[in-house]
Amino acid sequence: MKRYLIPIVLMAALAGCKPAPVVGILTEPTPASSNVPGKEFPKVYPDLRAEFQINAPEAQSVAVDCGKVYPLTKGENGIWSGFTEPLEPGFHYYFIIVDGVRTSDPNSTLYFGCGVDASAIEIPEAGVDFYLDKDVPRGEVRMQRYWSPSMNAWRTCYVYVPAEYEQNPDKRYPVVYIQHGGGEDETGWFRQGKADIILDNLIAAKKAVPMLIVGDYGQAGDFAQILLNETIPTIDANYRTIPDAKHRAMCGLSFGGGQSWSIGLKHPEVFSSIGVFSSGMFGGVGPGAYAPFSVESQLPELVASADAFNQVHDVFYISCGEGDPRIEHTRAAAEALKAAGADVIFKAWPGGHEWQPWRKSLHEFAQMLFK
Amino acid sequence: MKRYLIPIVLMAALAGCKPAPVVGILTEPTPASSNVPGKEFPKVYPDLRAEFQINAPEAQSVAVDCGKVYPLTKGENGIWSGFTEPLEPGFHYYFIIVDGVRTSDPNSTLYFGCGVDASAIEIPEAGVDFYLDKDVPRGEVRMQRYWSPSMNAWRTCYVYVPAEYEQNPDKRYPVVYIQHGGGEDETGWFRQGKADIILDNLIAAKKAVPMLIVGDYGQAGDFAQILLNETIPTIDANYRTIPDAKHRAMCGLSFGGGQSWSIGLKHPEVFSSIGVFSSGMFGGVGPGAYAPFSVESQLPELVASADAFNQVHDVFYISCGEGDPRIEHTRAAAEALKAAGADVIFKAWPGGHEWQPWRKSLHEFAQMLFK
Repeated sequence: MKRYLIPIVLMAALAGCKPAPVVGILTEPTPASSNVPGKEFPKVYPDLRAEFQINAPEAQSVAVDCGKVYPLTKGENGIWSGFTEPLEPGFHYYFIIVDGVRTSDPNSTLYFGCGVDASAIEIPEAGVDFYLDKDVPRGEVRMQRYWSPSMNAWRTCYVYVPAEYEQNPDKRYPVVYIQHGGGEDETGWFRQGKADIILDNLIAAKKAVPMLIVGDYGQAGDFAQILLNETIPTIDANYRTIPDAKHRAMCGLSFGGGQSWSIGLKHPEVFSSIGVFSSGMFGGVGPGAYAPFSVESQLPELVASADAFNQVHDVFYISCGEGDPRIEHTRAAAEALKAAGADVIFKAWPGGHEWQPWRKSLHEFAQMLFK
Repeated sequence: MKRYLIPIVLMAALAGCKPAPVVGILTEPTPASSNVPGKEFPKVYPDLRAEFQINAPEAQSVAVDCGKVYPLTKGENGIWSGFTEPLEPGFHYYFIIVDGVRTSDPNSTLYFGCGVDASAIEIPEAGVDFYLDKDVPRGEVRMQRYWSPSMNAWRTCYVYVPAEYEQNPDKRYPVVYIQHGGGEDETGWFRQGKADIILDNLIAAKKAVPMLIVGDYGQAGDFAQILLNETIPTIDANYRTIPDAKHRAMCGLSFGGGQSWSIGLKHPEVFSSIGVFSSGMFGGVGPGAYAPFSVESQLPELVASADAFNQVHDVFYISCGEGDPRIEHTRAAAEALKAAGADVIFKAWPGGHEWQPWRKSLHEFAQMLFK
């Protein structure tokens, strides 16, 4: 955490006075912004420790599991409480463990992750505000239901439309198809990822062109078939899109990053720009989880002609967290792709296999698109 | 539950053969439609009992609380399981109690109710399909963010637009402002209540005119001021509404039913139709919770002139569940209002203080509006 605090402390020392308030710097213990409105705990401290309180008078043991397990201590009143160590800035899923049962914290808003509606805590990052509510024109997120013949079911995708969409009834827009990670769903990029706020802020600052963002549920049936033959036609039929590859991008995180490669990169006639965030497909997620990555086996079309490949891929972006076990394999894959002549952009962010690098990846990727 | 099963059994006996499948009749144990997709439990049986399974090898006691508490039994494998008695059809919040701690069930999709993200189980109702997905044109639910000067915060309201909205760029629509109950939020009427599906089905069957439905978070600040001066102007500015009282209605359940009375009924210059579903304001929810209802004190304008009152209120609808402790006071209030000359419609539905009567109330109320 030092890297977040020292500059401020230093600043204060040099100025010989209290530091001016900086966005993302807490000056006192503060309820997490991810709490159910009005709930005091979990509380985030200026040093980024989190304090938890759980009322469980009859429990034998209560702990918080946010990657590392922190046992809580029982008070006279039957309320268990305790602190974590300073946490990484960003969004962390967590669970409350009551007598060995992994459950959720009634104080937390829940987010679909890890295959369940999971508790989570938002830790602010000093000086970082690109995903925070600002006084800018706000777009909408629309829940678009559509019938899926291949699944024989109604499905819902989330569609972000920029603030100007309704004011420009004759204007058509490019579209980013954005996919969640394993155990998450179509709500993830909007509720956890803040994709709509990120785009509202970028568009207001003229750093990104107005675009639609579509998130669909990707762990279902033959998703390539669903996305290409059902989701995209639904969006092109119901929204004012520019329905060609030049104006379509696909990106995703982890499991969805793999899909951006296997569906997006492999269909240049449909998508011209691709973002692969923290994908395990390059390796680093357990022995034998994935075959060793090789440009020859994975991207023969690049080997055949880098020029032809770069021609049809406007933005080819790969990212990963420095603390993510996938980082070394991802870095190596990006270097191999560059060596093979691909115009690939590789970015490593602080943090692990979590939402903060994914928010930063979308924030950077979106600024490169459709220009 | 007999009232649901006997007719079918009888039908079968008389016909001397298996009954034809009827919507809402289960022929075998079936995972609840409210489960996280793919989760087997809770499972609903043809007699409407629910079976629960919770993996908690280290727990001392595990129970399900869905109004009544049902203890679960620990199996060899550390999995606790058990049955409820037959449950009322409809949507029921529930909690898992692990060693005395009230928590959620990881198998259930969670719904914001009781002030937390709560587990819930959907029990089908024989022959009732008005809130089920059908192959009809589907509208959208849009998350509309807006800045609230009075709260000094961004707020989000949910806005349903009918399927035809985008196809009729010059057409303007009436609006129903719909409020959730205590401990719920703006998502309640759409996620628990299925308001969008109810309207999709009604509009497709030409039983209701195409309309917008707006759900806002009502347990905040001075909500009358927010709704009248912030929410309604936001909706009129961002959607093609008919911005007059004749084309505005307000309804709500429980806490939101009280608001429909205190805000909607009291502002006939803003709303012409009002629905009060299962409100505690008439009494029946604990001694002294509310002053005894009297037309004279609550509605002097009606006493002054029933004609004038009825003139400005197109639809004045009051409903309550037969099993709701509020039913007797609500029935008495409706009779007093009729005696005072109000053209009030009163409806009692099977069920308690729950979503099934509220879904049925919206289904009936919406068919009366804007005609």
